[in-house]
Formats: sequence, C-alpha cells, structure tokens
Amino acid sequence: MDEKESSTDGMAQRIYLDNNATTPLELDVKEAITSALSKAWGNPSSSHTQGIEAKAIIEESRQYVAEMLGAKASDMIFNSGGTEGNNMILQTGVKYFHSNRHCINNGSMEKDHLPHFITSNLEHDAVKLVLEHFAEEGIASVTFVPASSKTGHVMVDDVIAAIRPSTCMISLMLANNETGIIQPVKEIFERVKQINTSRKSVPKILLHTDAAQAIGKIPVNVQDLGADYLTVVGHKFYGPRIGAIYVKDLGSGKEVPLYPMFYGGGQERNYRPGTENTAMIAGLGQASKLVTENIDKYNKHMQKIRDYLEERLKGEFGDGVCFNGRIGTSCRIPNTCNVSFLSVDCTGSEVLSNCKLVQASIGAACHSQNRPSPILLALDIEETVARRAIRLSVGRETTQEDIDKAVNDLKQAVKKIQNRNGGLSPQFVEY
Amino acid sequence: MDEKESSTDGMAQRIYLDNNATTPLELDVKEAITSALSKAWGNPSSSHTQGIEAKAIIEESRQYVAEMLGAKASDMIFNSGGTEGNNMILQTGVKYFHSNRHCINNGSMEKDHLPHFITSNLEHDAVKLVLEHFAEEGIASVTFVPASSKTGHVMVDDVIAAIRPSTCMISLMLANNETGIIQPVKEIFERVKQINTSRKSVPKILLHTDAAQAIGKIPVNVQDLGADYLTVVGHKFYGPRIGAIYVKDLGSGKEVPLYPMFYGGGQERNYRPGTENTAMIAGLGQASKLVTENIDKYNKHMQKIRDYLEERLKGEFGDGVCFNGRIGTSCRIPNTCNVSFLSVDCTGSEVLSNCKLVQASIGAACHSQNRPSPILLALDIEETVARRAIRLSVGRETTQEDIDKAVNDLKQAVKKIQNRNGGLSPQFVEY
Repeated sequence: MDEKESSTDGMAQRIYLDNNATTPLELDVKEAITSALSKAWGNPSSSHTQGIEAKAIIEESRQYVAEMLGAKASDMIFNSGGTEGNNMILQTGVKYFHSNRHCINNGSMEKDHLPHFITSNLEHDAVKLVLEHFAEEGIASVTFVPASSKTGHVMVDDVIAAIRPSTCMISLMLANNETGIIQPVKEIFERVKQINTSRKSVPKILLHTDAAQAIGKIPVNVQDLGADYLTVVGHKFYGPRIGAIYVKDLGSGKEVPLYPMFYGGGQERNYRPGTENTAMIAGLGQASKLVTENIDKYNKHMQKIRDYLEERLKGEFGDGVCFNGRIGTSCRIPNTCNVSFLSVDCTGSEVLSNCKLVQASIGAACHSQNRPSPILLALDIEETVARRAIRLSVGRETTQEDIDKAVNDLKQAVKKIQNRNGGLSPQFVEY
Repeated sequence: MDEKESSTDGMAQRIYLDNNATTPLELDVKEAITSALSKAWGNPSSSHTQGIEAKAIIEESRQYVAEMLGAKASDMIFNSGGTEGNNMILQTGVKYFHSNRHCINNGSMEKDHLPHFITSNLEHDAVKLVLEHFAEEGIASVTFVPASSKTGHVMVDDVIAAIRPSTCMISLMLANNETGIIQPVKEIFERVKQINTSRKSVPKILLHTDAAQAIGKIPVNVQDLGADYLTVVGHKFYGPRIGAIYVKDLGSGKEVPLYPMFYGGGQERNYRPGTENTAMIAGLGQASKLVTENIDKYNKHMQKIRDYLEERLKGEFGDGVCFNGRIGTSCRIPNTCNVSFLSVDCTGSEVLSNCKLVQASIGAACHSQNRPSPILLALDIEETVARRAIRLSVGRETTQEDIDKAVNDLKQAVKKIQNRNGGLSPQFVEY
C-alpha cells in the first residue's frame, strides 16, 4: 500500500463522518491491545504464570464491560462481534421454545408448533436476516412490526398486539443505525414483563436489545432497560472488532437461558468455547471503561457537533436539505444526521463520490449499493428523498472546524453535480 | 498487574515450553496488527477510502494464508478461530447430508436417517465435543475410530472399515496436540476419494482435517493432503487469536458445500458475516507469510531443539523418563516432547508446579485438570505413566541454552518431590 496515502497525515485531511459504520480506536484501547499482544499472549486456560496473567486481563475486562452496562461481570460473555451475539441470542430463543414443549402441550399453544419472534422492520441485517432465515427454513415464525412513520420507531402497542402464546422472544434494536432514532425498548420490555407475570401455561417471553449503535452515545443500563439479553459491539464505541453479550443472571439457574453455538474447549463457561482473543478483550475492556467514565462528555460533545452540522446544512442549503431522522418528537442518538440533498437529481452515493474530504455512507456499511435505504422507505419517506439520503455520523473527535470543512465539501459536490446536470433537479422543483 | 512481573525482562527468565497451547506473536505479526489498528480501522464494507484501504489489507492477507496452504485465495474464509472453524465445517456435514436426502430415498440409505461422521478418539475437544453433541442430540451418528497403540494414530483400514452409506464426513486432526504424532490423513483421504468415485447412489464423503497443530511446524498443502476442508488457527503459529478455514473451490458450484452458522451483513461472501477484524486478519496474513517463507527453517530448528531436549532428558534421567509420543516409526511434528517422569510418585502437574522456570502443561490447555490425559490412555499408555506426563513443546525461539536451563529446572523439581516423598517412587521400582 502507498505509504503516503495510508499515512496518518494523509488521513487527517479526510473528514470522517461515518462513525456509525465503525469508529477509530481510542489511544488507550490501542495501548491495551498492543500491551496484551506483547505481554499477555499466554493461553488463558494454561495454569502457569503466562496463562494466569492472560486470564486476569480477561476478567478485568469483563468487569469493565459489565460496569458500563450496570451488569454483573458473570452476566457477560465475550464473542467475535455483534453478528455472532445476535445470532447466538436468537437461536437461543428457538432452543428455549423447544425446551419448554412440555408447557406447550399442556397449555394453549397446541396449534403453534413453531417458536414465534417479534422484531421491527428497522433492524440491522444481523437480526433481520437471522429471523428471515428462521422463517424461510420453517424454524420459527416471525412478526416484523412496522415502525410508525409518525415517530420513526415501532409503537409499544403494536409490539404488544403482536404477542401470541408461542412468542418466545422479542428482539428490538435500541437505536437505529441509519436514522439514529431510539426505540421505546424500555417501555415495551416493561409491558411485556407485566404480561409475562400472567403467562402461566406458556413460557415467558425473552427480551433482547441490540445496543450496537447506542453504547458510547447514550447511557445504556440493562437494569433500566429491563433487558434479558443485550448485544455489545466494540468497534462502534472506539473499541476493537469483537463483542460481548449480556445475559441476565447467566448460569444462575434462573429463567434466562443461553445455548452455545459452538462446542469445544470450555472457555467462557462452555457458553462460547475457543481460545480467548485476550488482546482484543483487553481493548474492549478499555473501551468500556472509557465509556463508563466519559459517557456524559461524549454525549454532549457529539450532540453539539451534530446539531451544529444540521444547523450549518440548513443555513447553506435551506429547503434544499431535509433531515430524515428528525421525525416528530422522537429522540435520536446524539451523533447521527441523516440528510437528503434535494437540489440535485442524483443519489446520496453520487454526492459522496464527488466529495473530496467527507468520508460517509448512505446507510449501513454492509449495504453500499445504490438502492434507496429500506429503513427510510419503511418510514414512508418518499423514494425520491430516500435515494438522496446520506448518513453523516460524527464522533468524539469531530470538531466544528471539521464540520465547516465538511459542509463546504458537500456544497462543492452538490454544485459540481448541478453544473453537470445543467441546473437544479427537476424533483427539487416539485418541493 | 505487577509491572516487574509482567515486564518483558521478567518473562525472559521463564522458559516457555508450551508452544502447542499458544505461541507468542512474531514481531512482524504484532507490527501488522498495530499498524492496521491505527491505519486500517475503517469498515471494510465502506465504499470510501477508509473502507477500501481496510478491504485491501484483508484481501492481501487472504492471499498470504492461501499461499501457505497451496490454496486459492477464494477458498479461504476468515473466522474467529479453530473452534468456530471446526464447528462450522462439522455442521456443514449435517446440512450437506440433509440437502442430499433425495439421493438417500432412492439409494441404499433408507435405514440410515442420520448423517454419519467418522473421526478418531484423539481429536481436540473442538471436534470431539461437537460430534458428541450431535450424537447426544440425535443430530448425527458418530464413529470414533480408536487409534492404534502400535502407531499412536488411527489406521487407514480402520477408518475405511467404518464407512457406511450414510457417512457424510470424515474429520481427522493432522497432528495430535499432545503426542505430536501425525495421522495418515493423506493416505486416508486418498482411499476415500477412490471410494467416492464409486458412490453413485449416495453422496460423496467430505474430508476435513484440523491442521491447528501442524501449520508452521511441517509443510501443510491442501492439494497434497487432498482435503476438502482444513482448519487454520492463528495463535498456534505465532499469529493472532483468529482463524480461517479452507474450503475446496468454495462457491464454484462444485461439490464441496459450506453452510453459514451466522446470518448478517454479507461479509466473507455471506459465509461468515460480521464486520471483519481487519487488524487480526492483517496479523494472520503476516504470520502465514512467515510460514510460507521459513517453514523449512522453523521445522529444522524445532526438531533440533526438541531432539536435544529428549537427549538431555534421557541423559539426565535415564530410565526415569519415557517418551509417550515416540511410538513405533510414527512421524511427529518437530516441536513436541511428551515425557513422563517415572522416578517420582506424583502427577505431571505436580512436577510442573515445582518448576521455577519451565512453563508447560500436561496436555491440552483447555484441560488443566489433574486427571491423566484421555489421549494417552486412548493409546494404551498405562495410567501410572499417563498421569505423570508433561507436554514440552518448543518454539521458534527456543535455544539449547533454554533447554539446558529447563532440564536443570525439571531435575530440581523432581529431586524436591523425591526428597519430600522420602525417596524414589514405589512405582518406579517396578520398572
């Protein structure tokens, strides 16, 4: 790779506004990783000093991750990332349902031989595609509750109305990755818990939230949310490319089960065997510690910068922009601005490809295609607007100066496309 | 953590002879990781520069891993490690069997409604426990072919004799982690390929080898082995705690299938979704490149040092030691010495806990218990010998001076226990 192009200096000229896709690593996180690579490379299962030292780092990190979420260290299982976490929790829902078949036969579920999941139509592919796979393979039935176009999130009553006797799990993202809109997870989980107390003849409904986009941006507390399961994704909060899951009172013999996807050497109490990635776990611990200590600061900074960005865009483009994540009075995570440039007849991707400095995306990184975001379409945002959408997600280090440069860069990109197209977008005239 | 104790200087005084449990990272590997953490932190799925740079590193690494194995880059899928790799391949065997049920109904397999696996009784838990789980849950039937005590490995004819119409996969480790003995994988796979050509009414048998302990110690070439699947584990060859699997002609529409365990954002061609751990992948690529370039040197050095170790042990302890991995004319990987100290009435663990410098284990790190190794017992090694066993596995950096110190350390440990016990072991007298 070209040294000059990949040097830190080279990168500093770019304005990175894609922090919902991934974040750079904090210096403390990098140091924890590199230190562990050099000093804690022993096998954590080894009973000699080299192993004991590695094990100690893992347990310290587990404590840090747990503290960030208001959980117990024993509730946390490390894994390779959010995709694995979501898959593991969802397949646990299926196995939980089948392990309760004795209830089913005596109760009111005779007709429902398949486990039933409830989720939203706004979920990340790491939930959506798992559940679609379950449905296609006849493993489970799934209700994708449509979000309300008036709020940008699923409505509590709609989720509750979808509950059946065979419902085994509700899985809802805490904050949407494209709009930033926070779902009423806490309110839904509270209502389901009430329903659970009266579910005598059928198993209780398990409650999962994928907190990938929320952690590090807003306070996330498992007690407050009332979650049974929560997915942690390191690289969304300046940590490494691994993850963890929270499972309420894991292994206590209480109601929340966890079924392994892998079998092997017994690591992570047999829930997730495989020699531990000590260095990355050390990094995840450090990233979590930083969040615990600084969440208010991070939250306020990002909100200030994101609000400044939206203000500047509005100032420069006027009615030529609309903000797709600003729906009703719904709360957003503080770093996300989903904006459509209405004054050019081209996709968001084209605008971005004409930028010289701005690094951003049109939606989930896994979907870099040129089709309009299914999330925005699900919120009844018009296709002409949705296809113009760009997601600008600021970070801890983004400055107002960066925003000024980014807005100028977007202006020149829009201008260039307008000139090429010979004037304003015909669609824009309709607005 | 005590700075002094965990410093590099502090560690240098230890003699690390547990390279089969895990290896330290090569300097080039650490540099690749730390460089990628700083420079290639972008999401590889992002279409902007930050993402493109990360993607390029991943593809370069894929090429390096493939070259190490004589494979095509497109045959390699990155994952979180050997446990995941083995689990994924074995569950693919089950799904492959069921996807061929049309053959089964027309063919000679009517009675065999379960997929049948053949493996050995020497496998690592990441194969053994997966297959035991399949058997317990009624997912598959499994033949654990017993190894021969005359060779320390499974015999070709015994494996072939275990084949049934319903056999869907044979999974055999290439080299055993405790004895170091190399299994006749190539010979077995050749024989099965001949059988496969005449399996008209039932599906062909898929061939998997877990090469965790072989890579970096002996040349490993997928063409030469005739493997359909091969498991790669980074931390066994001075790489990071991730892995990869080789799947012959993956995605070409030819005969070797791969079924995902996770669903999500489409990474690794949908076979293994989840945002890629770029830094660790960079490290795995670098570790593989080093193996490709230096395998002969590594092999010769380790063999020289291991042979020196066994010579020195024999010289010092005479009939007071026996070497459990030296069975008949069987080949061993060049770094592994499995030795029992017969002159003390105590377990291998007790000897190690009385060592001041030597860091080693009694067998697989995942089994640090005080019971005799099931692997050694499976080879008909007497329990009194098996419980005394220690696995000493040398590495690329182990020197003759290290070995001299290690042997002296073992001598003082044995002497200390002998003095404590008031003389020679009663068992020893019988020898």
